[in-house]
Amino acid sequence: MSYYDVKSIEAKKPAAGVEMRVVSGERMMMVFFAMKTGAEVPEHAHPHEQMGTVIKGSVELTIGQETQKVSQGGAYLIPSGVTHRAKCLENGTEVLDIFSPPREEYR
Amino acid sequence: MSYYDVKSIEAKKPAAGVEMRVVSGERMMMVFFAMKTGAEVPEHAHPHEQMGTVIKGSVELTIGQETQKVSQGGAYLIPSGVTHRAKCLENGTEVLDIFSPPREEYR
Repeated sequence: MSYYDVKSIEAKKPAAGVEMRVVSGERMMMVFFAMKTGAEVPEHAHPHEQMGTVIKGSVELTIGQETQKVSQGGAYLIPSGVTHRAKCLENGTEVLDIFSPPREEYR
Repeated sequence: MSYYDVKSIEAKKPAAGVEMRVVSGERMMMVFFAMKTGAEVPEHAHPHEQMGTVIKGSVELTIGQETQKVSQGGAYLIPSGVTHRAKCLENGTEVLDIFSPPREEYR
């Protein structure tokens, strides 16, 4: 299958106020997050390289020791093994995270 | 560097009506495309796996033998080696393509 309507993908709910919809390839995975104000992804790290962009709304991100507000049109890179956390700053926020390799636990 | 303001990244202009802004990691690369109506990426293929999403506007995509209009909120997966082409259907279209491995010629 080559084409996806993201809204129609069945959502997982990994935390309060967080929905995720996954599209996976062989070498990388897209995870579309929809978040509500105050929803949090607590500090964690993983061997997968992560990049992402804010499609709508804004989040407060901490990557390593550096915290920034990232809004629509912002992007970020989280190298393998670097700790990071996220907090949603407004309802209706949409974030796309991509991982390589794919995160098997999200398939 | 962990954070990027996509608009402030220097744009390359690979074709008429197409601007691209690149953020690259070790294992994957994000390429943010801004396109005008009628701008085209002619049919091509590459060994890199490609995935993407339409952030704003719409494009007509052909992946292998299948052509679809992809609008905001649509996503796609182009496996390694599969031919594909794109044509922009409206001004102000923004598309995010991701590649793994990174495309060295875009760095």
